[in-house]
Amino acid sequence: MAQALELAREALRDGEVPVGCVVEKDGAIIGRGRNRRERSLNALAHAELEAISAACAAEGSWRLSGARLFVTLEPCPMCAGAILNARIPRIYYGAREDLSGSCGSVINLFMENYGFSPEIYGGLMAEESAELLRRFFAEVRRERSGGQEAYDGSQKPRR
Amino acid sequence: MAQALELAREALRDGEVPVGCVVEKDGAIIGRGRNRRERSLNALAHAELEAISAACAAEGSWRLSGARLFVTLEPCPMCAGAILNARIPRIYYGAREDLSGSCGSVINLFMENYGFSPEIYGGLMAEESAELLRRFFAEVRRERSGGQEAYDGSQKPRR
Repeated sequence: MAQALELAREALRDGEVPVGCVVEKDGAIIGRGRNRRERSLNALAHAELEAISAACAAEGSWRLSGARLFVTLEPCPMCAGAILNARIPRIYYGAREDLSGSCGSVINLFMENYGFSPEIYGGLMAEESAELLRRFFAEVRRERSGGQEAYDGSQKPRR
Repeated sequence: MAQALELAREALRDGEVPVGCVVEKDGAIIGRGRNRRERSLNALAHAELEAISAACAAEGSWRLSGARLFVTLEPCPMCAGAILNARIPRIYYGAREDLSGSCGSVINLFMENYGFSPEIYGGLMAEESAELLRRFFAEVRRERSGGQEAYDGSQKPRR
């Protein structure tokens, strides 16, 4: 998770909502990703999709059995669905995301009847992750002078 | 939907589960995609993600307001989540998908509390779409001689 946080910091430096993700297997990191939606102007440019895509390339397989995914923010439905499609059996996330989080907040996709239910562990280094998000939204607020509040866990990170 | 079906036929010719997708806006197609998971060995290589990514590039925006998405098979949770992330307001799909369909079959992601609820129209040219899927699975069954049954709407297309 420390490495996922480092990727989130990289996103922050690049003006993106700070979210980072790594996929690990057998003690080695096989995929890294971080949010880059604003720069890429692409709705799919979430940290998890980038990391899963890299991990599939590294493994030469769409099936990431035996891998673990670490992400600094609770996955949205797209990313939770990608986790199901890649059959990643263990997921660790940092801060909760109340407006689109799909591993327990809005819904828990892994408890639905998809025939595959990853184990999920939330709250890992959650404070460090939330602090990065607060810094990002404070910066946005400063730039826009008013409007956007600091991230307190109840706002949509708008990735 | 006829153009989405043509992309599904292209997938079939390429040995992929036949699913095709187009994104349309103001009467023009701005994104095309088809399933290519087996060839690309990537869990994300679904028709909808390819079409949405192309449409974002064409529009220069992650937000596809005013667009319509046509896909030959009911979207999985990853693709339904991508539709939410891209804010596509109207979705048309062909055949139902009982094992991972997330626009009414397993769950309906668009009825959950994400703050955005696309309109959804199912069953458009469903028979043509299902027939392509049946042909694919009949071919798989022939090649593997036994095991895989023909697609009858109750099986997982395993995209």
